[in-house]
Amino acid sequence: MNALSEASAVETLRWRDGRLELIDQRALPARLEYASCTSAAEVAEAIRSMVVRGAPAIGCAAAFGVALEARREQHRTRAEFSAAMDAAFATLAASRPTAVNLFWALERMRSELAAHRGDAKAAAARLAEAALAIFRADLETNRAIGRAGMKHVPDGARILTHCNTGALATAGHGTALGVVRSARDAGKRISVIASETRPYLQGARLTAWELIRGRIPVTLITDNAAGHLMSRGKVDMVIVGADRIAANGDVANKIGTYPLAVLALRHRIPFYVAAPLSTIDLRTANGKAIPIEERSAAEVTGYAGARWAPEGVEVANPAFDITPAGLVSALFTERGVVKRPNAGKIRRLFKR
Amino acid sequence: MNALSEASAVETLRWRDGRLELIDQRALPARLEYASCTSAAEVAEAIRSMVVRGAPAIGCAAAFGVALEARREQHRTRAEFSAAMDAAFATLAASRPTAVNLFWALERMRSELAAHRGDAKAAAARLAEAALAIFRADLETNRAIGRAGMKHVPDGARILTHCNTGALATAGHGTALGVVRSARDAGKRISVIASETRPYLQGARLTAWELIRGRIPVTLITDNAAGHLMSRGKVDMVIVGADRIAANGDVANKIGTYPLAVLALRHRIPFYVAAPLSTIDLRTANGKAIPIEERSAAEVTGYAGARWAPEGVEVANPAFDITPAGLVSALFTERGVVKRPNAGKIRRLFKR
Repeated sequence: MNALSEASAVETLRWRDGRLELIDQRALPARLEYASCTSAAEVAEAIRSMVVRGAPAIGCAAAFGVALEARREQHRTRAEFSAAMDAAFATLAASRPTAVNLFWALERMRSELAAHRGDAKAAAARLAEAALAIFRADLETNRAIGRAGMKHVPDGARILTHCNTGALATAGHGTALGVVRSARDAGKRISVIASETRPYLQGARLTAWELIRGRIPVTLITDNAAGHLMSRGKVDMVIVGADRIAANGDVANKIGTYPLAVLALRHRIPFYVAAPLSTIDLRTANGKAIPIEERSAAEVTGYAGARWAPEGVEVANPAFDITPAGLVSALFTERGVVKRPNAGKIRRLFKR
Repeated sequence: MNALSEASAVETLRWRDGRLELIDQRALPARLEYASCTSAAEVAEAIRSMVVRGAPAIGCAAAFGVALEARREQHRTRAEFSAAMDAAFATLAASRPTAVNLFWALERMRSELAAHRGDAKAAAARLAEAALAIFRADLETNRAIGRAGMKHVPDGARILTHCNTGALATAGHGTALGVVRSARDAGKRISVIASETRPYLQGARLTAWELIRGRIPVTLITDNAAGHLMSRGKVDMVIVGADRIAANGDVANKIGTYPLAVLALRHRIPFYVAAPLSTIDLRTANGKAIPIEERSAAEVTGYAGARWAPEGVEVANPAFDITPAGLVSALFTERGVVKRPNAGKIRRLFKR
């Protein structure tokens, strides 16, 4: 990472013993401010209300949530501690349904707990270490994804991305935006087209903010404009992140990803997915089995103080869609690149 | 039209001798209020600033703009009148570039003027009549489009539409929404999925409002969600309007239309375009020759009082895109339906 990237680094999650500080992403880009959590319930609420979002960041936050709860409850009896921890896991698991990194992180934390359930104080200390390890590994993982993916990014590439997959969505560096960052840090003169990503506007609010801060050229568009730009030859590749990748390579990602993949196919533009192995869910056979979160109508009928839809209108607000593996040119992972992913190649990836 | 439709009718444009009243569509759905224009310059500004929008409504407004100017200037000398009218035509023609109905209406008004240029008072009276004739014909045209199109709408159909193509976009009834209205009035139990249509949110603000007012079931979605709903079998057909149709059948329409057509093809969902012949521009060979308006960055960086994109971000904001004729299942026009439109079929349509 060069000096520029260091200077512009964003601390999405900060662990202070007994407290997790999270950039309140609802306030960006107007205000950079932190929310503080001291219990699993507070972390779950921060995930649910999208103070923190992005599959890897959600996984890290959930791990810290478990650690916070263990710390709070470490002076209880063995039975009380055990019950409190079970409740904490349940609360965190119920916060959001689609991103699998959440369940992956909780499972790792549960294994740690299982090894120390007899001694609450030892468990609390160990769970804090385990959460920090997950957090630190995510940063390293993202840098490895960036190194693998950037080989597919030619000098001068105009990269379309969707939603936010940067430092704000991870422990740092980013997945799809991590590839962008790595390519730029390697001296490639790339530029980004950021789709605004309705309804939550992560592209307009977060990706644009991160890229301006990182001095990477960015052009903001409405989601509707992606097809037009592709048809005019203004997009060289699409790189997106993922919330869950099924065993066959189908990708659940932010709503609006699937249309980009269909358009990219039509225009013979490579469509890449950058994600850590923790996003791949071998127990989910294919995209049809991935639960799609339905979020509130209020996200669609307006924004912040403004309401633009008429009162009483029915709304459908699926937060994710499924891109079939057949539309994915390659997966960029920390173990390298999987071209034209399918079930066999993904199984082999875990054995590399 | 049944009693329900009569009761819910929207008067988008109202001609009061010497004054054109327009629903200020920027204020909907919060407030139903009229803006008043008494000159061509005021009408041009109303078109530019989207007080009035929708290709047929823009055509009608421009015709009234010419009539207003003639009335204002009818007591001038012949030379002054002629110069004022030339300026009025130029101002109106420069208001927006893509919708061809604007130029079509101006051309018809120019022919009327040419026949009466010697007598300003007679010209003013004749131009007012001509504008009213264009307005009344548009309403009849839309009803004919509705009758033609509704034969392709089965009972129970779930119809995805984009932008606003209803009474607010026309002299009344609507084009794509006119087909919906005609189908409902014929007793078909249809429902509409309205895409919100960023950046200007005509779907969320105008289509949802019109349909609720007309008691037609409507579900509002983000533009990003259309692909997901199609992939889950929740869309039976797409019907959109058009701002300009080239001689070969390529369709310029609101940005985001082209992705819907590509998605519809993938899911074998019929993709219909409803438009009057005045939207077909035989002098434009194909979609590449249609000028695409680029609108202001402010439409993308926020809405009304709210700003969500960071300061200084670059924006691309094309207002229209081109759907190639090959993706259009059929055109619905006032002279009937043109399946799989191409240059030959469109030429023959004008001879029907």
